[in-house]
Amino acid sequence: MAFPEPLERLIRALERFPGVGPRSAERMALHVLRSPPEEVAELAMALRDARMETVRCEICGNVTLRSPCRICADPERDPGLVCVVEGPREVARMEESKVFPGRYHVLMAGFAPREGAAPEEAALAALRRRVESGEVREVVLATAPDREGEGAALLVAEALRGLPVRLSRLARGLPVGTRLEYLHGEILAEAFRGRRAWNPDSDPDGGEGDPSR
Amino acid sequence: MAFPEPLERLIRALERFPGVGPRSAERMALHVLRSPPEEVAELAMALRDARMETVRCEICGNVTLRSPCRICADPERDPGLVCVVEGPREVARMEESKVFPGRYHVLMAGFAPREGAAPEEAALAALRRRVESGEVREVVLATAPDREGEGAALLVAEALRGLPVRLSRLARGLPVGTRLEYLHGEILAEAFRGRRAWNPDSDPDGGEGDPSR
Repeated sequence: MAFPEPLERLIRALERFPGVGPRSAERMALHVLRSPPEEVAELAMALRDARMETVRCEICGNVTLRSPCRICADPERDPGLVCVVEGPREVARMEESKVFPGRYHVLMAGFAPREGAAPEEAALAALRRRVESGEVREVVLATAPDREGEGAALLVAEALRGLPVRLSRLARGLPVGTRLEYLHGEILAEAFRGRRAWNPDSDPDGGEGDPSR
Repeated sequence: MAFPEPLERLIRALERFPGVGPRSAERMALHVLRSPPEEVAELAMALRDARMETVRCEICGNVTLRSPCRICADPERDPGLVCVVEGPREVARMEESKVFPGRYHVLMAGFAPREGAAPEEAALAALRRRVESGEVREVVLATAPDREGEGAALLVAEALRGLPVRLSRLARGLPVGTRLEYLHGEILAEAFRGRRAWNPDSDPDGGEGDPSR
């Protein structure tokens, strides 16, 4: 044993985090030793609180303090428009964008979707039930534009097969604000295949022309 | 606020770790939510224990349960040979190598030596006092073979200036067990400059010839 027992124990506990190897765990543990005791107590408390005080929303599956979650319970959010995402972090990102007026459906406890997790059977069944209830007119797929995300999207389509609901997915193309030189060929290829007619006189931003001008 | 309050609080607390950005902190926090409560309690406990139960050794500065540390208190360890390292992790690595029969001197709370930390004034002064006591005949510099490590080594040499003690440092060269194709040019350059006469008949492993054969 290279370190004193309590330090070894902390390193072992930190190694359980995804993406934290033995060397990072050591570094984190030694950081704890020189942090003010109040900060360490805060972290310990935050761990327990987050674990004990949160649950998953019985409707959308997102992390919440009480179920149904704030968004599912919000009468201002359009219940006919459901955005399907991989996990709670994707809900957070969509909310940050302030563009989406509907509700969500979370496919996985999804806490590590990029690490081989697949949509939960229960989440797919719950989505089907939501659509079967007749309230949902459009399901927007917002899974990642990669292999896992595509696979998840196909499973969602499969789960909803035969139901009268419109399926859509987020547009693929150039990520706004980047320079072409930094983009993969695949991103450019997808943007080329999805190119859209553009009339600079009717809409300086591209996209659909604005008929009012 | 994108997540429920206890989750946000946990994310903020995890972000204080070195090398943990907002996105990794989210991933770690969501991992906590789906971990068994016992594991979370274990981690919380380990954090407090590690912080409260460890101290720094009054002689070498390493992390320990009680001071002086096990190594400084061990009569079997040569007090005349002191290996100067950047932090507790480097002590752990040296101990794992089982090659070093002496004692240590830790330059920094050293918990993030690669992040611009410099040797502590107090650690340098304490090393000088150890050498002045007359017990130390050789100080082996085991700081990293990079700019920060070289800088630390120079500060140690400066601190010991004028004292009758032999200074040495770990050899530079090819790291055993790698293939040349994977090594930086700088590593090869250092290995070339430090090349040593080799007589395969007297010593199949290279290095100094064995006069007994």
